[in-house]
Amino acid sequence: MQGCLFCGIAEGTVPAEIVWSDDEFVAFRDIDPQAPVHVLVIPRHHAPDLAALSATDAAQAGRLLAAVAAVAHGEGLDGGGYRTVLNTGVDGGQTVSHVHAHVLGGRQMMWPPG
Amino acid sequence: MQGCLFCGIAEGTVPAEIVWSDDEFVAFRDIDPQAPVHVLVIPRHHAPDLAALSATDAAQAGRLLAAVAAVAHGEGLDGGGYRTVLNTGVDGGQTVSHVHAHVLGGRQMMWPPG
Repeated sequence: MQGCLFCGIAEGTVPAEIVWSDDEFVAFRDIDPQAPVHVLVIPRHHAPDLAALSATDAAQAGRLLAAVAAVAHGEGLDGGGYRTVLNTGVDGGQTVSHVHAHVLGGRQMMWPPG
Repeated sequence: MQGCLFCGIAEGTVPAEIVWSDDEFVAFRDIDPQAPVHVLVIPRHHAPDLAALSATDAAQAGRLLAAVAAVAHGEGLDGGGYRTVLNTGVDGGQTVSHVHAHVLGGRQMMWPPG
């Protein structure tokens, strides 16, 4: 979508430190990391949020979670563990309107989750 | 799975405040809520964590996210927004080895997410 930051990253027109990608998803490091490992996983195809994605393509939402697991594996988090966070809307803390999963690890994540 | 707390809730042998369910998933209130709305969504079929679920049945993982969106809608969170959290392993803060998505809303969620 024109003007969408994450579409720009997926298309390669906006720079990012990409750590993993396939035909459908791109994973890159958060520019303001909250843990030693903090990666965002996005679908290349624009969807504004989790509600929209799961309503239009639940199968892709599932593959998004599989991509999260692949990224966590690639980042060496299988043993220690990790937290997956999807923010929807203002109260959720969503700041970019292109659905994305945060993958955080490399430290003990605390409770509550924000 | 025998001895699994969340399998017990799904089977009805362990009490919980169930807010939504279908043939595949059950949603119930967290007993130690961290927000005005704090619901857990689990598949009835046992899988230990997100990695296992997405590896064995990515389609079900997608329907889990669709169930999260349905629960958020039912809890009146469509307008304000919400946070979805899946903890995997020790660093993630996973305390029950049956995959579950936390849905938190009704207040501004903070950053970092724990």
